[in-house]
Amino acid sequence: MTTPRIGFIGLGAMGAPMAMNLVKAGYAVTVFDLSPPAVNRLRDAGATAATTAREVGENSDVAITMLPRSAHVEAAVTGEYGLYRGLAKGAVHIDMSTIEPSASKRFAELAQENGLRMFDAPVGKSTAAAAAGVLTIMAGGDPAVVDECRPILDVMGEIVYHCGSEVGAGAAVKVVNNLVSGGILVVVAEAMGLGVKAGVRPEIMVEVLGATGAANWQLANTLAQKALKRDYEPGFAISLIHKDCGLGAQMAEDLKVPMPVSGLVKQQYEAAMAAGHAGLDWGGYLKVIEAAIGEDVAFGAA
Amino acid sequence: MTTPRIGFIGLGAMGAPMAMNLVKAGYAVTVFDLSPPAVNRLRDAGATAATTAREVGENSDVAITMLPRSAHVEAAVTGEYGLYRGLAKGAVHIDMSTIEPSASKRFAELAQENGLRMFDAPVGKSTAAAAAGVLTIMAGGDPAVVDECRPILDVMGEIVYHCGSEVGAGAAVKVVNNLVSGGILVVVAEAMGLGVKAGVRPEIMVEVLGATGAANWQLANTLAQKALKRDYEPGFAISLIHKDCGLGAQMAEDLKVPMPVSGLVKQQYEAAMAAGHAGLDWGGYLKVIEAAIGEDVAFGAA
Amino acid sequence: MTTPRIGFIGLGAMGAPMAMNLVKAGYAVTVFDLSPPAVNRLRDAGATAATTAREVGENSDVAITMLPRSAHVEAAVTGEYGLYRGLAKGAVHIDMSTIEPSASKRFAELAQENGLRMFDAPVGKSTAAAAAGVLTIMAGGDPAVVDECRPILDVMGEIVYHCGSEVGAGAAVKVVNNLVSGGILVVVAEAMGLGVKAGVRPEIMVEVLGATGAANWQLANTLAQKALKRDYEPGFAISLIHKDCGLGAQMAEDLKVPMPVSGLVKQQYEAAMAAGHAGLDWGGYLKVIEAAIGEDVAFGAA
Amino acid sequence: MTTPRIGFIGLGAMGAPMAMNLVKAGYAVTVFDLSPPAVNRLRDAGATAATTAREVGENSDVAITMLPRSAHVEAAVTGEYGLYRGLAKGAVHIDMSTIEPSASKRFAELAQENGLRMFDAPVGKSTAAAAAGVLTIMAGGDPAVVDECRPILDVMGEIVYHCGSEVGAGAAVKVVNNLVSGGILVVVAEAMGLGVKAGVRPEIMVEVLGATGAANWQLANTLAQKALKRDYEPGFAISLIHKDCGLGAQMAEDLKVPMPVSGLVKQQYEAAMAAGHAGLDWGGYLKVIEAAIGEDVAFGAA
Repeated sequence: MTTPRIGFIGLGAMGAPMAMNLVKAGYAVTVFDLSPPAVNRLRDAGATAATTAREVGENSDVAITMLPRSAHVEAAVTGEYGLYRGLAKGAVHIDMSTIEPSASKRFAELAQENGLRMFDAPVGKSTAAAAAGVLTIMAGGDPAVVDECRPILDVMGEIVYHCGSEVGAGAAVKVVNNLVSGGILVVVAEAMGLGVKAGVRPEIMVEVLGATGAANWQLANTLAQKALKRDYEPGFAISLIHKDCGLGAQMAEDLKVPMPVSGLVKQQYEAAMAAGHAGLDWGGYLKVIEAAIGEDVAFGAA
Repeated sequence: MTTPRIGFIGLGAMGAPMAMNLVKAGYAVTVFDLSPPAVNRLRDAGATAATTAREVGENSDVAITMLPRSAHVEAAVTGEYGLYRGLAKGAVHIDMSTIEPSASKRFAELAQENGLRMFDAPVGKSTAAAAAGVLTIMAGGDPAVVDECRPILDVMGEIVYHCGSEVGAGAAVKVVNNLVSGGILVVVAEAMGLGVKAGVRPEIMVEVLGATGAANWQLANTLAQKALKRDYEPGFAISLIHKDCGLGAQMAEDLKVPMPVSGLVKQQYEAAMAAGHAGLDWGGYLKVIEAAIGEDVAFGAA
Repeated sequence: MTTPRIGFIGLGAMGAPMAMNLVKAGYAVTVFDLSPPAVNRLRDAGATAATTAREVGENSDVAITMLPRSAHVEAAVTGEYGLYRGLAKGAVHIDMSTIEPSASKRFAELAQENGLRMFDAPVGKSTAAAAAGVLTIMAGGDPAVVDECRPILDVMGEIVYHCGSEVGAGAAVKVVNNLVSGGILVVVAEAMGLGVKAGVRPEIMVEVLGATGAANWQLANTLAQKALKRDYEPGFAISLIHKDCGLGAQMAEDLKVPMPVSGLVKQQYEAAMAAGHAGLDWGGYLKVIEAAIGEDVAFGAA
Repeated sequence: MTTPRIGFIGLGAMGAPMAMNLVKAGYAVTVFDLSPPAVNRLRDAGATAATTAREVGENSDVAITMLPRSAHVEAAVTGEYGLYRGLAKGAVHIDMSTIEPSASKRFAELAQENGLRMFDAPVGKSTAAAAAGVLTIMAGGDPAVVDECRPILDVMGEIVYHCGSEVGAGAAVKVVNNLVSGGILVVVAEAMGLGVKAGVRPEIMVEVLGATGAANWQLANTLAQKALKRDYEPGFAISLIHKDCGLGAQMAEDLKVPMPVSGLVKQQYEAAMAAGHAGLDWGGYLKVIEAAIGEDVAFGAA
């Protein structure tokens, strides 16, 4: 196929560098965002600015949405000035937002009713990875369509997983992934709090746990490299893992899956939010543990 | 110092191969266990059989206990026929049992009253590692005493961590370690249940999660290598992680540390016990998830 | 004031008998529902049938909505054919649906923008109480407006609580109320499962607990009068308490309140839903307990 | 039968007034406690002081123990100077301590081996009820033996429930009872925290909840009459409900009953203990909720 024209809606912390990489890779990219400065930065870099989502659609063969919640995606694709009004029959919509799988499925049906092809492809990792074009991408949908768009995805990501042939499979894996990483963090922090209260130094626990069946990425990175050094600069903020726990709860309710432990983990992040730690890196959850075990017991150095 | 005479009390699944390795390494080892066949196997290999714990003490410079619970250790070291009556002043007692740290501290005090030196050194890993002499050993107590005994520990273990200079620090790290590994297993199994119900194949989740911040040993080993292949042969049985969760709960109560998530994890293993899975490998916890999400949804192949 | 003309939107299991009582009390009532048979039954009893929510508004001084979720209320009041287009300035909208307080507040703002007066007034108790006109009504909003409408509310309810002068206060109390009753049911059922497993007959527990600090309405009614007699005919179905737990979770998230125990209670009802008990009376939660403690242990007689 | 001579071991906050009532009722009572002042007070009132538990046994037909934990009961009844050495064949031992049912069963077996008759009869209610002789008594064991001792029990209690013919049934009901009352308190406090954060006054919630399916003794008494009035004077201290939750956990583990909600409730009281509230009345649990939802939100008046 000839080089497709690309549309990009949602130029936030993740979307902006992703769109930028597409521009740099030589694609013709038409962008839209509610924030004029965000649009201007992309236009300055060579993108074309649209004034509605529909206009993005009118100028794209493949349109990408990268938005905070399913309500935003819905607002962007539906209605008189929505993306689906603008896209020609057979065009592709890739939703790369992290939303609940049931919403992805709903958009897929709507796309089909409009003669469009659609798949979901949420991303893992951080804004740094978005800038470097090394995101982890989890795609769900018709493998032929995903393959057709793979060159575009490869510009933004380092690795693209095809998680299943139903739209929503990418979102499902993303949610499962974050329930696991968020849950592990809480489990490790709570247990280390016990160790600290028992008088064991955190470094010893990092060393021993890392060498046994307790080994995990969160301990070696989020905690050992950041939180235990009192570095709470957000790579992935507590407000974001809290949001993802909410997506997990929604997905569990949709599928009738009881998740007692994940449900409680969500409440722990809720406690972190209530204590004012929303903006800290997720390792800042240690502060909740410190408050529970007493002010005099401290993780890491002063 | 001259080569110490070694005593060994507790010749169970772990203790027997540990004692055997000491015999093979050329140490004079005096053993005791309530099971005559267990004693006989060691005697046949070159150990000396004692008929009481006290007799073990009378023939040892360093005496090791490797018993199921603190009540067994208490029975072995105290009383008219106990180990502490037999050991000479200045002798060393190493308790390698996995027990609550508060009990370790109690034995340390008792040892001191009897003019003895004592430290705790519970072990990680499985019976296979015990046989191969590659256990992970977590020692807590006076560093000089631990160092003095290091040649002995090195016969049984691959790596010896000195977890703190207070007796009980080894036990504390062991408990924290197992709360983490046991908690991660429950978190991962629960989240994978959600993914399976959403129609995602377990292999995809193993692959994606293993490449992100969700990566952990339990997923890569207990689940991917065993449980997801329907292999429930116990390397580490559900009854054992259940017991360790109980030690964690006891330790948390002793130290006044609220542990909501670990407490709930313990209840999940309680549910596995109630469902009759005590003897399965801990990855058999997946069966609890399968029961919750419906018989028709299966992990792995038939 | 002269006798107000009343509008009623939502003629379901609760709404129909409530509207019927207003007709019987002699009010001029204009009704609307998406189900024609539901509308016909009220018309046959003397109400006027409208074909849009707007038409209800055009013929009412006080309009009541009684709908399943906030999305339905939103659909009914907004838009070209919505209630707020029809109501004259100064008219009153009473939302008696059980929805999240944040949605009630949103509707209050919208009403104000349209020159209307609005308060929320969700109801407690069952369909039988709706038919008998003895509902418990929890109102939130300007006390003067609530007082003005009290004669109307008194037709439907036995007691009207004014829960606070902010719109949403009625909904807040309703949600708190149901989190408490739903939570107590789970606590009691779980503890009685322990007693049953210990060999104690349920009747003994009902008698003793009812005479101590453990006494509660759920034990004396939902359990002793129904579930322990194997009567699962829904007075209040598991699907409804499950929905209310969801409202509680939403409200907690909106207000940043960690609720670990309520969160876990919700998961228990989720487990009941997953096991296929959605349609049973909430006392049917006992079946989840029975499954956990073993098929051979039965509550009550066969 | 002739009037039995009574023995009483354990003269603490509950035991002392119970023994006193037996003295006042005209029984010949021989008492023992490790605290001389406690013994002296009873002796001054007309009891006979013994210097060992065995001596109590030698002077009793019916001996009562009222001690904090099963370890204390074990110490009192076994050994060279224990109660069971002193009691004559056929004598009765009533253990009124609140302990785990499995321990009660163990003592029953031991009693039988010694030719004694034994049942358990823990009590409900407070020290005030002990002084007034209006305790709730939960007896478990041979109904004939319980009936034989009923005149004695009636001196101490207002109502005596026969909970089952196996020893331990009284303890089982007591534990279930307290898991329920302790669980309800946590559920209500957590939900009221949500209401308070939403701006609803606690008095409104007390009024509404008390009139619906949410009605319960804890709300009407522990909270409305004490904690919401900032009265934390212990009628039943947090340390005691915490202890009872521990008995529940032990009993659940013994019987293999998963209890996720009770397990989490225990952790909530653990958090109250960790925050230094052990000595407050159990309604002081509200302070844990206040800390979670923010200092600026207060229950009740200053």
